[in-house]
Amino acid sequence: MSGGFTFTLDATSGAARAGHLALPHGPVETPCFMPVGTQGTVRALSPDDLRAAGARIVLANTYHLHVRPGEDVVAALGGLHRFMGWERPLLTDSGGFQVFSLAGSRTVDEEGVDFASHVDGARRRLTPERAMEIQWTLGADVAMAFDHVVPGGADAGAARDAMERTARWLARCRDRQRALAHDGVTTPRRHDGTNVRPGDVATWRQTLWPIIQGGAHPDLRRESLQRTLDLGPWTGIAVGGLSVGEAKPLMYDVLASLEPGLPAVLPRYLMGVGFPEDLVAAVERGIDLFDCVAPTRNGRNGSAYTPDGPLNIRNARFRTDAGPLDAECDCETCRTFSRGYLRHLFVAEELLGLRLLSLHNVRFLIRTAEAMRAAIRAGTFDRWAAEWRRRYLQPESP
Amino acid sequence: MSGGFTFTLDATSGAARAGHLALPHGPVETPCFMPVGTQGTVRALSPDDLRAAGARIVLANTYHLHVRPGEDVVAALGGLHRFMGWERPLLTDSGGFQVFSLAGSRTVDEEGVDFASHVDGARRRLTPERAMEIQWTLGADVAMAFDHVVPGGADAGAARDAMERTARWLARCRDRQRALAHDGVTTPRRHDGTNVRPGDVATWRQTLWPIIQGGAHPDLRRESLQRTLDLGPWTGIAVGGLSVGEAKPLMYDVLASLEPGLPAVLPRYLMGVGFPEDLVAAVERGIDLFDCVAPTRNGRNGSAYTPDGPLNIRNARFRTDAGPLDAECDCETCRTFSRGYLRHLFVAEELLGLRLLSLHNVRFLIRTAEAMRAAIRAGTFDRWAAEWRRRYLQPESP
Repeated sequence: MSGGFTFTLDATSGAARAGHLALPHGPVETPCFMPVGTQGTVRALSPDDLRAAGARIVLANTYHLHVRPGEDVVAALGGLHRFMGWERPLLTDSGGFQVFSLAGSRTVDEEGVDFASHVDGARRRLTPERAMEIQWTLGADVAMAFDHVVPGGADAGAARDAMERTARWLARCRDRQRALAHDGVTTPRRHDGTNVRPGDVATWRQTLWPIIQGGAHPDLRRESLQRTLDLGPWTGIAVGGLSVGEAKPLMYDVLASLEPGLPAVLPRYLMGVGFPEDLVAAVERGIDLFDCVAPTRNGRNGSAYTPDGPLNIRNARFRTDAGPLDAECDCETCRTFSRGYLRHLFVAEELLGLRLLSLHNVRFLIRTAEAMRAAIRAGTFDRWAAEWRRRYLQPESP
Repeated sequence: MSGGFTFTLDATSGAARAGHLALPHGPVETPCFMPVGTQGTVRALSPDDLRAAGARIVLANTYHLHVRPGEDVVAALGGLHRFMGWERPLLTDSGGFQVFSLAGSRTVDEEGVDFASHVDGARRRLTPERAMEIQWTLGADVAMAFDHVVPGGADAGAARDAMERTARWLARCRDRQRALAHDGVTTPRRHDGTNVRPGDVATWRQTLWPIIQGGAHPDLRRESLQRTLDLGPWTGIAVGGLSVGEAKPLMYDVLASLEPGLPAVLPRYLMGVGFPEDLVAAVERGIDLFDCVAPTRNGRNGSAYTPDGPLNIRNARFRTDAGPLDAECDCETCRTFSRGYLRHLFVAEELLGLRLLSLHNVRFLIRTAEAMRAAIRAGTFDRWAAEWRRRYLQPESP
């Protein structure tokens, strides 16, 4: 392990930024798309596939890993990096999003959230402190604060309540994380109350990133940002609770109104976003990092990103198409197989098809981020983005 | 492309043989296990995975590819090798086994078989000539004769009828294959009656291997062998209709009674076999080549081969097991992941688990074949086989 949690800005082009982040498990160049390994695996892809796709950092879900197999099992198997076979940087979300969006019945109070596991229905409880302890035990490079997420259509009252609670919980997350980091690996407790012993886990360092909430209300967002900065210093900052049902222009407005207040020295992570066009729009508004299940989920549904927009590989017009999925792509799928073969795999319901389209879509988003980085460094991002949109957003040819 | 269809015997140890086969797409060392790519893909594995597992030759199913996507589509996409992204040797079965064992309603007459497609129920017809034309259009290195397969329990009368029909059909297969091979690529007809044009397909060579039938009746088997040899010469010879429900000792008896009559200069292929212990028993009885869906099917069910017998990775005792699936294996699965992680993938129903256990099981059979080859060349096969069985066939430890 090397590096700390330093972010360096290499270039800007308008509000768009190119930078690099040093994390304990390696460097991350931005803009950067993080594939999502919900249950400790990016669905249908191996660590070798992810490296081949150019992934530098992967996200894993604290909620899912806590529920199954449990963070104690992950720790016993050497921590999350070893568990997944992924020695590059990892980021874990806090479980807040899953608890508020996936869990069926839940009760929220100032202390935390009670919810029912989606696996076995068992009642479980997450608090800001537990979320930090679980993430510490998992051992990702970056842990996220435990936040209160509201749906995209939440009114100002509900959004303010959740934003204020998120700020109060952030102080508790920060204090617990500092204690864990200062006391080292003998302090964290497993869920059965026993300590994690030093021999159970690797010696790692972990940083905490806060999450700005406030729904689709720019004034609440700016207030959340100010409260967050008051609780710092931080090594990075996230924008959460977007892409949760609100109209896209609203998301862009929120980002544009936040941008001037975001410290230039912090990497900015837009959580749960998104589609290719969202990445471009968000980088235009000063965002550095992204994660989303869309490339793998879409890939499993037969939808593939191309520079000329998405296509559905099941379409009969690809039956004898000997060309690659995307002639400009360098991934294994595009280097090896024809559209006609990929269509056959989907029509015949073969597992390999799920993997090959997931791999391509992940590579497509990573290549898009790489292209944005190059355009920012060349000072030509606006022109690049206009040209990219002209091709990508055209209607799919018949 | 290089090589023809030459088989060279390198060493023997008892009845066990080590040899090598030169095929147009490359060499194959025997004993050899062929992974099965039923629909033009070895389920859950990519060509890179297969190369990493040491596969030298893959089998694909004529029946499945004829029904979907159709051999015309495969030819339009450059032939089966290009279609699958697999430039090493390929063998196609004839569709006989599938027509007789999978297709629901079928009618057999001397001309051929009418059956209903398992995909859309459409009536289709296979004859010896059509089976050869389809395989020629697919373009595998080795095509198999169209045979009449009976269940393991078939009485001598039914087994004789099918064996005699198989011999008559073999003469027709041979004649049609010779015409195709002599006339080159302008002769084969697609299923719409048009010719396959030279530009549609690669220029390849293909050989035909006959299949010995006769059920579980050694006398019928020997008669089938004699009739087959009378119709030659051949570049290889297959034993079909075993491992279809008969008791294992019966299969071993059939192999042992056939062995003295099999020409030493021909590679011998035991179709649809099998489990690790079957490979060892059949090599002991002079067999060189195998195929079976068991390693991938078992792998998808969570069953993994190890030198100490199979294990089920879902077992709770593997929950925090940090060791590899098989400490003696060099596959990606065993080099990268713990049993605890693999168990998690299966319990959480993650696609990666299906791939990792399939990959390991295929590698296990290929390594077993490699180990047998080494033991045969060292003249120590009997000792090797006894030791292998002592470990593999012991009851799984608690």
